[in-house]
Amino acid sequence: MPDRFTPPAAPVGIDGLIALLAKLPGLGPRSARRAVLQLIKKREGLMQPLARALADVAESIKICGQCGNVDVVDPCAICRDPRRDAGLLCVVEDVADLWALDRAGLFRGRYHVLGALYRPRWVGPDDLSIPALIARAQSPDLQEVILALNATVDGQTTAHYITDRLADCGVEVTALAHGLPVGGELDYLDDGTLAAALKARRKF
Amino acid sequence: MPDRFTPPAAPVGIDGLIALLAKLPGLGPRSARRAVLQLIKKREGLMQPLARALADVAESIKICGQCGNVDVVDPCAICRDPRRDAGLLCVVEDVADLWALDRAGLFRGRYHVLGALYRPRWVGPDDLSIPALIARAQSPDLQEVILALNATVDGQTTAHYITDRLADCGVEVTALAHGLPVGGELDYLDDGTLAAALKARRKF
Repeated sequence: MPDRFTPPAAPVGIDGLIALLAKLPGLGPRSARRAVLQLIKKREGLMQPLARALADVAESIKICGQCGNVDVVDPCAICRDPRRDAGLLCVVEDVADLWALDRAGLFRGRYHVLGALYRPRWVGPDDLSIPALIARAQSPDLQEVILALNATVDGQTTAHYITDRLADCGVEVTALAHGLPVGGELDYLDDGTLAAALKARRKF
Repeated sequence: MPDRFTPPAAPVGIDGLIALLAKLPGLGPRSARRAVLQLIKKREGLMQPLARALADVAESIKICGQCGNVDVVDPCAICRDPRRDAGLLCVVEDVADLWALDRAGLFRGRYHVLGALYRPRWVGPDDLSIPALIARAQSPDLQEVILALNATVDGQTTAHYITDRLADCGVEVTALAHGLPVGGELDYLDDGTLAAALKARRKF
């Protein structure tokens, strides 16, 4: 019977593609190989459009200078949208949370992405976009800041910290109601729970 | 409280990218969104290389005219490799199976990809690459054809059919030992089980 030896597992170009795909969250080496075989089968319908879409988005992606959202324009489509209520500002940890809330289709205001949560001694207010948030809170149009942060220790620490910092700005600070399961992460909530939490938001 | 309305969930270019990624096996809309956010964070390290790798592979991919493997050259690297034993030919259903076997690093022969399994009235011998297999089996160098097919009804039907068709070719036809769990699919096997099945292969 043949001895064990190590041949190249797949051609170099394909190997490289598998290795890159395996770095995506949700895909490992095995599922990346299956994905590559699927892509090869659908070269014109999926592989080439995906290559183009990646190159286009990589070329044109911008971080919105106002809210921190990612978009192909700056300011982003949400900040530009005149139908959005300039009196409402929803503070989220990251862009995934912004997308989750916006997908629910319940909120007609604008967003502010912190980029992280406040963790004393690790992540300070200047690592987050809290100075920019305070600047936005000075706007005479703004009436309410809604804190849509994870119901975790870091999330609630951040919420308290922001509430303190906004105390003199004359805006009402509210937080998502505890419809969200304690310890859960916002990005994983279903739209119904998000809706309940938004509607029952309370003075913080 | 705000009425429900439906804003664009994410910008068009990014939306399109999410929709394309969500078509990959192993990714749904939610994990595709997470993947896109990850890609945006690693634009130079991951997104641009992935776009290039996809475009390169889409441009250069070929189906090997000898064995049916996918590669960027035709004949594929395995068929070209002079260290491979021309006396051994391993018959697999699809390219995923070929890669699974070759990853195990135990087999030093060449492969033959059928493309599907024989299913009377649905998939006939001409839909598979069985005529090409018979042509390869005529080669005086070839000594043994190893059938590495799923231990399913279709796999075993195909194995019997191929054994009949190769009866006059003067090659020995063997099959993977029943180390593989009955009803299981070859592509999901661990390397150890694959090795046991290869070593204990029996005359079919």
